[in-house]
Amino acid sequence: MDELRLLEIIRSCAPALHPPGLVTGIGDDCAIFRPRGGTEDWLLTTDMVLEDRHFRRTTHPASAVGYRVLARGLSDIAAMGAEPRFCLLSLALAEWAGGRWIRQFFGGFYRLAAETGTALVGGDLARADKVGCDIVAIGAVPRGKALRRDTARPGDGIYVSGKLGGSALGLRLMRGRAWQVHLRPRPRLELGRFLRESLRATAAMDLSDGLSLDLYRMCLASGLSAELDREPPVFPGASIEDALHGGEDYELLFTLPPRARPPAQFDGLPLTRIGTVREGKPGLVRYLGRRLERGGWDHFRQRR
Amino acid sequence: MDELRLLEIIRSCAPALHPPGLVTGIGDDCAIFRPRGGTEDWLLTTDMVLEDRHFRRTTHPASAVGYRVLARGLSDIAAMGAEPRFCLLSLALAEWAGGRWIRQFFGGFYRLAAETGTALVGGDLARADKVGCDIVAIGAVPRGKALRRDTARPGDGIYVSGKLGGSALGLRLMRGRAWQVHLRPRPRLELGRFLRESLRATAAMDLSDGLSLDLYRMCLASGLSAELDREPPVFPGASIEDALHGGEDYELLFTLPPRARPPAQFDGLPLTRIGTVREGKPGLVRYLGRRLERGGWDHFRQRR
Repeated sequence: MDELRLLEIIRSCAPALHPPGLVTGIGDDCAIFRPRGGTEDWLLTTDMVLEDRHFRRTTHPASAVGYRVLARGLSDIAAMGAEPRFCLLSLALAEWAGGRWIRQFFGGFYRLAAETGTALVGGDLARADKVGCDIVAIGAVPRGKALRRDTARPGDGIYVSGKLGGSALGLRLMRGRAWQVHLRPRPRLELGRFLRESLRATAAMDLSDGLSLDLYRMCLASGLSAELDREPPVFPGASIEDALHGGEDYELLFTLPPRARPPAQFDGLPLTRIGTVREGKPGLVRYLGRRLERGGWDHFRQRR
Repeated sequence: MDELRLLEIIRSCAPALHPPGLVTGIGDDCAIFRPRGGTEDWLLTTDMVLEDRHFRRTTHPASAVGYRVLARGLSDIAAMGAEPRFCLLSLALAEWAGGRWIRQFFGGFYRLAAETGTALVGGDLARADKVGCDIVAIGAVPRGKALRRDTARPGDGIYVSGKLGGSALGLRLMRGRAWQVHLRPRPRLELGRFLRESLRATAAMDLSDGLSLDLYRMCLASGLSAELDREPPVFPGASIEDALHGGEDYELLFTLPPRARPPAQFDGLPLTRIGTVREGKPGLVRYLGRRLERGGWDHFRQRR
């Protein structure tokens, strides 16, 4: 059973409920809420980081685990062009994680929290056999302005930020710049806001599970196909496979209207057009003329 | 290291951040937010339910696990007198949890969601060695009206709803009405609202970790002591120890002004005065003239 099939089960047996204030539920990077009488929409997202799935205690420093936990949540906020405000953290601690590990974990966590102005306002604590973290990130965006993944339009250009495959490379090498990129991915908050305010992106999402899988998801949500007519920008030393299928880069994938002329860089970060949105089978991605198989990270297909 | 010590570490190294919209952060059942321009406050809480800590696959039916996950979150919403609106669920699934288990889990989860009008609007999915759930529950309350645990006043009466110790008894017996109470605790949403609107409770929280530990927490937060001058109401068949220290009853603990005359029952649920809030050492609880030791559920002291 893959993740999309599981999501289908979860959606199909859900009761029909429409509480006041819900704009978008399951399916995008964040759920979107509109508080009664409010001028902003609020975005909520949750992301898990689990020992031996997303990190190993022997290789990943505690401070990097803490940093990455928050970075995963904030990357979803960035993808919708929002400003982070708060977070809650559920933390299951194994016996091996003592006071020193916990302090270092929160050192990394709070470093990113301070840099981004994200206040930790609650959570839950428990004991478990392995460390498990679940971050709830909460952001705000002017009413009706959140970027979404289901709003790409035929003819839009498809773009990515940065260079891809660095995190996959880093996980193999466990040293050098790629390893630092893997350990401390930078949530693209300023870029997300720039996409929303200045470039008027038509759709956006973050690259958490690999370009091939995430672009498939964006196309499926938008009911469209994608044609990639050039290689994506590759992180120095990484392979084209890393760039196409490697997860956890936390760059942004976005679409712009056909006539948009975005800058080549934003704040030193390359913005690269890699293809075009097309009418066609929803979710189909063609790459240099051939169908691109989804090779990204799907926990439920156990590809890696 | 106990949970309060761990919370102290988490709080002490937090950067000083005051994003707009935060009313109450770490320390109460829920964090409280005030959306810009809004007429309601929003409450957020997270709670974990972990295999072999909170349930066992061999004894707890999947539908009860799903029900309890949401019930834990909604109990925090109830304790603050709020109305539930939405939830997000992070779900780590073990290999043993196949399609049938997942469907039954969501059967129980959605049953309570439908009964309480709580829409599932997002979450995260992952694979793990054991099943782990983290529920994010979101509720709304008129601006400034949320019940809190840190607002008890000297002279207030201390009350509990229902009869205590049923969940602890159920976990021992694994049959009968106590077992049903353990498996499917009813979040006291209507009572929470009644406490806020009609009884004007001065403080409230839910009994998730046992009366002795939770009352200690309420007294500590309010900077006061408690004097219990009678036995708490005991679930039929349970012991007084179960009622004083057993966790997971999910009844409400609340305080009322000295002259309040609450009904003996609310909707069939007994409301029992068990003592009085006093000036004194913050957190000290005296029971029938002697200091009451905290025997409730603290994951980090491993009392049970």
